[in-house]
Amino acid sequence: MNIAVIGATGYSGVELLRFLRHHPYISRCSLYSSSQEGVPLSHSFPHAREEGELILQKIDMEQIAATCDLVFFATPPGVSSGLAPLLIEKGIKVIDLSGDFRLKDRTVYEKWYKRQTASDIYLQQAVYGLTEWNKEEIRGAQLLSNPGCYPTATLLGLAPLVKHRLIEEDSIIVDAKSGVSGAGRQASLNTHFSETNENVKIYKVNEHQHIPEIEQMLQMWDEHVQLITFSTHLIPMTRGIMATIYAKAKEDLSLEMLLDLYKTSYEDSKFVRVRKPGQFPATKEVYGSNYCDIGIAYDERTGRVTVVSVIDNLVKGAAGQAIQNLNVMMGWDEDSGLAFAPIYP
Amino acid sequence: MNIAVIGATGYSGVELLRFLRHHPYISRCSLYSSSQEGVPLSHSFPHAREEGELILQKIDMEQIAATCDLVFFATPPGVSSGLAPLLIEKGIKVIDLSGDFRLKDRTVYEKWYKRQTASDIYLQQAVYGLTEWNKEEIRGAQLLSNPGCYPTATLLGLAPLVKHRLIEEDSIIVDAKSGVSGAGRQASLNTHFSETNENVKIYKVNEHQHIPEIEQMLQMWDEHVQLITFSTHLIPMTRGIMATIYAKAKEDLSLEMLLDLYKTSYEDSKFVRVRKPGQFPATKEVYGSNYCDIGIAYDERTGRVTVVSVIDNLVKGAAGQAIQNLNVMMGWDEDSGLAFAPIYP
Amino acid sequence: MNIAVIGATGYSGVELLRFLRHHPYISRCSLYSSSQEGVPLSHSFPHAREEGELILQKIDMEQIAATCDLVFFATPPGVSSGLAPLLIEKGIKVIDLSGDFRLKDRTVYEKWYKRQTASDIYLQQAVYGLTEWNKEEIRGAQLLSNPGCYPTATLLGLAPLVKHRLIEEDSIIVDAKSGVSGAGRQASLNTHFSETNENVKIYKVNEHQHIPEIEQMLQMWDEHVQLITFSTHLIPMTRGIMATIYAKAKEDLSLEMLLDLYKTSYEDSKFVRVRKPGQFPATKEVYGSNYCDIGIAYDERTGRVTVVSVIDNLVKGAAGQAIQNLNVMMGWDEDSGLAFAPIYP
Amino acid sequence: MNIAVIGATGYSGVELLRFLRHHPYISRCSLYSSSQEGVPLSHSFPHAREEGELILQKIDMEQIAATCDLVFFATPPGVSSGLAPLLIEKGIKVIDLSGDFRLKDRTVYEKWYKRQTASDIYLQQAVYGLTEWNKEEIRGAQLLSNPGCYPTATLLGLAPLVKHRLIEEDSIIVDAKSGVSGAGRQASLNTHFSETNENVKIYKVNEHQHIPEIEQMLQMWDEHVQLITFSTHLIPMTRGIMATIYAKAKEDLSLEMLLDLYKTSYEDSKFVRVRKPGQFPATKEVYGSNYCDIGIAYDERTGRVTVVSVIDNLVKGAAGQAIQNLNVMMGWDEDSGLAFAPIYP
Repeated sequence: MNIAVIGATGYSGVELLRFLRHHPYISRCSLYSSSQEGVPLSHSFPHAREEGELILQKIDMEQIAATCDLVFFATPPGVSSGLAPLLIEKGIKVIDLSGDFRLKDRTVYEKWYKRQTASDIYLQQAVYGLTEWNKEEIRGAQLLSNPGCYPTATLLGLAPLVKHRLIEEDSIIVDAKSGVSGAGRQASLNTHFSETNENVKIYKVNEHQHIPEIEQMLQMWDEHVQLITFSTHLIPMTRGIMATIYAKAKEDLSLEMLLDLYKTSYEDSKFVRVRKPGQFPATKEVYGSNYCDIGIAYDERTGRVTVVSVIDNLVKGAAGQAIQNLNVMMGWDEDSGLAFAPIYP
Repeated sequence: MNIAVIGATGYSGVELLRFLRHHPYISRCSLYSSSQEGVPLSHSFPHAREEGELILQKIDMEQIAATCDLVFFATPPGVSSGLAPLLIEKGIKVIDLSGDFRLKDRTVYEKWYKRQTASDIYLQQAVYGLTEWNKEEIRGAQLLSNPGCYPTATLLGLAPLVKHRLIEEDSIIVDAKSGVSGAGRQASLNTHFSETNENVKIYKVNEHQHIPEIEQMLQMWDEHVQLITFSTHLIPMTRGIMATIYAKAKEDLSLEMLLDLYKTSYEDSKFVRVRKPGQFPATKEVYGSNYCDIGIAYDERTGRVTVVSVIDNLVKGAAGQAIQNLNVMMGWDEDSGLAFAPIYP
Repeated sequence: MNIAVIGATGYSGVELLRFLRHHPYISRCSLYSSSQEGVPLSHSFPHAREEGELILQKIDMEQIAATCDLVFFATPPGVSSGLAPLLIEKGIKVIDLSGDFRLKDRTVYEKWYKRQTASDIYLQQAVYGLTEWNKEEIRGAQLLSNPGCYPTATLLGLAPLVKHRLIEEDSIIVDAKSGVSGAGRQASLNTHFSETNENVKIYKVNEHQHIPEIEQMLQMWDEHVQLITFSTHLIPMTRGIMATIYAKAKEDLSLEMLLDLYKTSYEDSKFVRVRKPGQFPATKEVYGSNYCDIGIAYDERTGRVTVVSVIDNLVKGAAGQAIQNLNVMMGWDEDSGLAFAPIYP
Repeated sequence: MNIAVIGATGYSGVELLRFLRHHPYISRCSLYSSSQEGVPLSHSFPHAREEGELILQKIDMEQIAATCDLVFFATPPGVSSGLAPLLIEKGIKVIDLSGDFRLKDRTVYEKWYKRQTASDIYLQQAVYGLTEWNKEEIRGAQLLSNPGCYPTATLLGLAPLVKHRLIEEDSIIVDAKSGVSGAGRQASLNTHFSETNENVKIYKVNEHQHIPEIEQMLQMWDEHVQLITFSTHLIPMTRGIMATIYAKAKEDLSLEMLLDLYKTSYEDSKFVRVRKPGQFPATKEVYGSNYCDIGIAYDERTGRVTVVSVIDNLVKGAAGQAIQNLNVMMGWDEDSGLAFAPIYP
């Protein structure tokens, strides 16, 4: 199968390449970049040099459509909404890692992203690729919208509780912590080492564009769920997201019952691992891998459930889940190209 | 004034010394250690060498009582509850940085600390040294119990909301993040660099011994406040605590009104700085200093208030606040020995 | 092929497992531990949980010899020198990641390691597994001694210069920098996060046990090479070694000539990548992979060559090179189980 | 005394302010910036807010000359060489933290800095402020050129060896490691957290502009000293420099003799601390302070001396030494405004 990656010089793009190069069913992978055409990839990323140097190509949609079977977009906001339709119309499959096709309602997109996106027809056509919970739809998708990093960790952590209506609908608070790679490769004061090291910052308080993405999915699962509080913190590490999720139980629960529920919910999921009672995952325990690890606590004093969900933001939170979705779309083994352990320590 | 520090080889002890050596009203400071008597301090802490080498002395309570006017305990749990009464009875003032005298109810202490503590008479006598809110009592204290690091950040962040009864009494959730120095100098897998670096961990979920300390104070301010959810995370940095505090507003509030309230509440406090609208403090912005910086958000979508409170856990969260309490106890300027800026970057 | 790993609860052991589990020619891998027999591996390493839980077994040499074809030792100093001979005598192949069999001269071992090691017969039998330069011998090895992390980076960086006698024999100085994982998983003040973070330390000045290992190999290549100066620094990162190597050119050289030499020397090496003129590798560019990346400078002002050599200390510096040696010993593709890119960022 | 700081929005500028605000002899300190005139300093640096908000002023040389007694330049290369002469001519004292006045030979400056600098008359007039070794000249200086960070650590480490002619003149190699704050506050891929964290990089190999600055001073001390090899590495920490210095002894030395020499050399220096035999300083042990800590080894195997010299690059390597020079220039106690301990951990 011939694959194209548009936007190959960002962190998600180069991470896609890490998986695609050793994927058993991919014969050729071409890289496209708007800023560095004609330049070898190793110019930007010396670590990526292997035999057979890869050259970044000019984004020529005609040529891409003519030579590739499926196209990944690992581009900044506002790019794929313009380009992807050209491919869709020609029957080429698209997996979009940006947020352009994630929200079904254009006005919601415009409010949170402060820009325009694709037309309704494509927003409706796009399948939301939270693999574990949407496999049926993903199988037939032509345009797949890959979830955001925070929504992936949060939704996998909340799904069993929400789907089984175990928590008060207005009680969800998510305190999320992310490594700095989530901010991309663009240099800024915000990603400057001396400003970020030995530091925790909160950012985009009540304004993060992943808030409506999470709410949309929760309300698809249970229309009674109300707006959530969702905060994002920048942690002095490169990779990893932890979502600490708080919610009030509707009635008395027990830890045992909750763990049973989660284990059952994810028993067929290769990439979700539920911890034993009293154990909670750390972000490093999924580093570099496609796993989402989940731990659960129930506090009898307060009647609150705490769910701890960790992912590698560039893998399960971006490129890894995109490959997982590719595998499901193509009917391949779900872990093709993704069957490796976390790097520890 | 002659000062003794018992437990000078831990992080809080050596941090006390950093302030005491250059404190304008301290003439002599002696160091005591149970494990390293006769050894120069610079053996454990080469950074601390100044002219006039300090030698760690054996803990001899008679000798300490005979030569010192005030004694700091920077000891592990269970030490000061045994030793401090010997000094109290002789009229020596005591400032205890451990948790031994923080909880008024012995059974609560025993439940959360899994050990015994001092007898009721001393627990009742001990003054809780949250300086900004307890100055009157601190002035006359003989036995001062210095607050824990997490309670300091949390209570300074919550005080105006709770005292003015602006939030639902059952709605408080605190998600706290701490640097690794909060775990002390003891080597363990939990503080091992390779296990902690590039990692976020949650720990002691629903079981942290600072939970009852926070609840005790909140309920002293407003008896209707109910049990809280309080979570602690280990962050790959050495110093710093951020408490992200969530609570539901009782009625419609505005950011402007909240900021006014906080500014008024802390207008006479040298060490609490309230940020402008839309701005939030990062832990590095108080690094090495005695400041507590606070930022506030109000989300009209959900009716929730978010308060972000940061401190340096070893300064305002331990040794710095202890010096601040010393200053208040002695009637000195509150920032004596503490008048320096954060180190940035 | 059936494999045993003795010492599976250290960092090298668990890293071996990362590669062995997905190695195409390994059918079964058993783990042995002296301290945790009967315990699932995921108890110590939750990140390593996959389908089919691995249980740590008691070290029973009879049972190991009866069921395994090849045994890896990832043990502390002094273990394999005692146990490996039992396997050797039964015809089992051994790959030892510890230093026990690296030095040919027992008295040198005793001087630098301050302990005894194996008898001469095994020291002579052991093949030193610096794969790129010893392939012929490795092919027939029964007892393979895997090189130390520092020697690997240093020797790969120095080999072309020394073998071609281009540098003054008494001019070699190596300034090496290592991440903290090189110190193992044992908790100590030296690996404590708060003592190591935001810090560079030099350690074992002129006393590191890898010095004689490097000198032994250099003098095997050119008996005229004299004793070297070799320093080791602890860097606040988990993985990675950089060896910055300085030597005086015997006669006028040029950068072009040096780069040609290195490229030719390593043109058949899958895991050594030589950088372009003016470019130097960073440790992160080999993170998690088996690559050794090398950059070279020649200073016409001083007539000195500077070689920069980087590896991941737990991969090419330990478990990865061990697998590479396994592959050569068995006649498999040299990158079997190791064909993956560095993780970046 | 009235002080101006030009270039107050960089790391050196804000660090100067940390010391000047609490300096006993400074009555007023004004801040000037070319990019942010009229803006409060706390806009860029929230950590620096104290009572009495400081406003950044436009750089108006007439006004500065009329109102200030002494001016610090904490500006990028090429600024002070143009502006300082205007002040010098009016009798205002200048302390320049940039490199513009450090090299006595304009052609050398132009070769290494790739730009022009001040005219010879000012280069000759400028006094090089390596305080410990140049006190006499500093006392009478009107134009003081503050040393670079690397030269400070290196020269303090080498001075006793070079001045006493103990080492081979062509044998000096310096391997220096620096935290990222040395690269300034400008955002770039080179200071991006995700590119720098968990990483060691070498940079400007054989091309660093501090090389001629070090050589100039060494040759002033001993004209026979030859060109040196000097390498710089970027370490994943914010502050701190370690210079590991290698040199060949001319004749047999002993560690005892070397330590005596260093202790004698620095016995009157408040800010240089020499370690005991077998002990070496770590960068964290001077964090935030004006100390330079030095450890020494002598290897009888190779006849080489290793000197380890550490400083905080923003303090002794920049703003702290500038204040120290101010104190010497004015005849104040050398540690005025600088008498505080390192922050540890």
